[in-house]
Amino acid sequence: MTFDYAARRARLAELLPAHEVHALLVTSPVNVRYLTGLTSSNAAVLVRMDGTAMLATDNRYIEAARTLDVPSVEVSDVAGRLAAPGVGIEAASMSVAAYRRLGDGLVPLGPTVELLRSVKDEGELELIRTACAITDEAFADVCPRIAPGMTERELAGLLERRMAELGADKPAFDTIVAAGEHGAIPHHAPTSRELRAGDLVTMDFGARYQGYHADMTRTVSVGPPAGWQRELYELVAAAQRAGRQALAPGARAGEVDEAARSVIEDAGHGGHFRHGLGHGVGLEIHEEPFLGPSRTGRLEDRVPITVEPGVYLPGRGGVRIEDTLVARAGGPELFTKTTKELLVL
Amino acid sequence: MTFDYAARRARLAELLPAHEVHALLVTSPVNVRYLTGLTSSNAAVLVRMDGTAMLATDNRYIEAARTLDVPSVEVSDVAGRLAAPGVGIEAASMSVAAYRRLGDGLVPLGPTVELLRSVKDEGELELIRTACAITDEAFADVCPRIAPGMTERELAGLLERRMAELGADKPAFDTIVAAGEHGAIPHHAPTSRELRAGDLVTMDFGARYQGYHADMTRTVSVGPPAGWQRELYELVAAAQRAGRQALAPGARAGEVDEAARSVIEDAGHGGHFRHGLGHGVGLEIHEEPFLGPSRTGRLEDRVPITVEPGVYLPGRGGVRIEDTLVARAGGPELFTKTTKELLVL
Repeated sequence: MTFDYAARRARLAELLPAHEVHALLVTSPVNVRYLTGLTSSNAAVLVRMDGTAMLATDNRYIEAARTLDVPSVEVSDVAGRLAAPGVGIEAASMSVAAYRRLGDGLVPLGPTVELLRSVKDEGELELIRTACAITDEAFADVCPRIAPGMTERELAGLLERRMAELGADKPAFDTIVAAGEHGAIPHHAPTSRELRAGDLVTMDFGARYQGYHADMTRTVSVGPPAGWQRELYELVAAAQRAGRQALAPGARAGEVDEAARSVIEDAGHGGHFRHGLGHGVGLEIHEEPFLGPSRTGRLEDRVPITVEPGVYLPGRGGVRIEDTLVARAGGPELFTKTTKELLVL
Repeated sequence: MTFDYAARRARLAELLPAHEVHALLVTSPVNVRYLTGLTSSNAAVLVRMDGTAMLATDNRYIEAARTLDVPSVEVSDVAGRLAAPGVGIEAASMSVAAYRRLGDGLVPLGPTVELLRSVKDEGELELIRTACAITDEAFADVCPRIAPGMTERELAGLLERRMAELGADKPAFDTIVAAGEHGAIPHHAPTSRELRAGDLVTMDFGARYQGYHADMTRTVSVGPPAGWQRELYELVAAAQRAGRQALAPGARAGEVDEAARSVIEDAGHGGHFRHGLGHGVGLEIHEEPFLGPSRTGRLEDRVPITVEPGVYLPGRGGVRIEDTLVARAGGPELFTKTTKELLVL
């Protein structure tokens, strides 16, 4: 998939006067990729107010750089080659060591390329749609194999291998599988704990496809659930639905979070849901915009985002339900197609 | 595997007076893990001159933190909670944005925990040994399946899946498979190019096991090699042997690099080997020390490191041979056990 990189650089150039810089030195690898198409671990691109640009990378990537629509130079110290007084730098990703080495007169800027990246073009949405389809299919294929005696780590391995077979570049992030009491830990790393009848099991995973990420969570029941488990599940499902319904271009990020969070708070579980409701997905698994109580930004058309409320009961377990979907003028488009009914396996 | 984290913090505390700080604020996730045992994406640990420490992390990881031998506090802004004037910070990993937000009086330091980490204890060496054994075994299992018609991407997938089946956490890094003319690109990403008879194929891959990394490269021949291919292979093998033989505690990093590089230069290919000879491996795939022409540090006992010369001929192909081994007082211990004879498949 190729994109109109020159148009992206032109949109960035238009933002520079408001930041009082005549150029931006972009050093975050994912931002360099977004603006030029070059995938590397060591490259920088200087984008000037007039929309022209210069790419610097080392001998490992220079051949690839020379195939792109932007002039390039081969050098080891990529940022040093392009830095100059009055140039903006990416404060969130540049290290203190690099900043001090590059000399005076640089202007640290907050998220800039990241805000451009949050609104996707249709080609990017198609890649995320495919990543989500691979993720859905892997879940459907692995579900029938979930049974007591399988370990969390084995289940994570099955999901990751199936995604690879279905065409994923790699997992979008380290797969979470949390059985029983482990479900109370939102970011649990899979262990050798075996699944048992009566466990709720939370799986949080996704595929990366051509650089773009999918993110999905489902909690299933191994054998028939107890009353409290089904009740907890229905609560989280209701909150997730409310969050999705609030997702529209123009909505404030804090309002979307509140739509879901209030459902959980009204049930007395506000203290058991202590993370944000969701986050943008794209070239990074977590990117702008973020949905949380204190977030003031507004959603726009063509912003893919997750909605993932959870309730975590220390020592007992938890439930989280997460889709990737995209805010659209005509109503959100759901990329994650797997059912949100409680699956009893 | 558990380690003596308090002893590691004590060793760090001893280094602080030389840096003219009374404490170090450690924010690099892998350094936090090394000093406390906590694996997280958001934690900081303050290590004081007297060896005492305070760990800060958010609600996702606080339960895990409370099981450790260091006092901990739950907070979102982990660095903000622990920063104070006169405290050292890790300049290579802290962002400009964080540094500016944390206020005045912080002292940016260069590699500190990284230098401690370069010398491994026996428990760490055992994990790297296991990671290398998984890597060797995956190569042995996949080799018989390499044949014309298989794509670079399929071959990378086979290696990665086999490592997972053998117990790897995940691949240590994005697997490189470079067939034919792609072998001229040191960091080639696998494509749909099919292997053909007459190709040299370079595979650079490794397993991560319990957080520790293996790194191995082999170039094989699909069908009988041409004269120039065998000649190139024997040259790189000779350079790799010379590099391994120079690897001893007390050797200067630049001298080890020179031992291998001079073999390639003497054959007239100096301009076709334009990366460093190797790098340390441990909790990171690339870590201190680095072997390169301008590197002045000296190797020590118990430093695992790669030796990976290559020769790259633009448009034609290339050869790289890489082992992970460890500098030892009695001579280097080879962790990568796969033959370095040219395999004809």
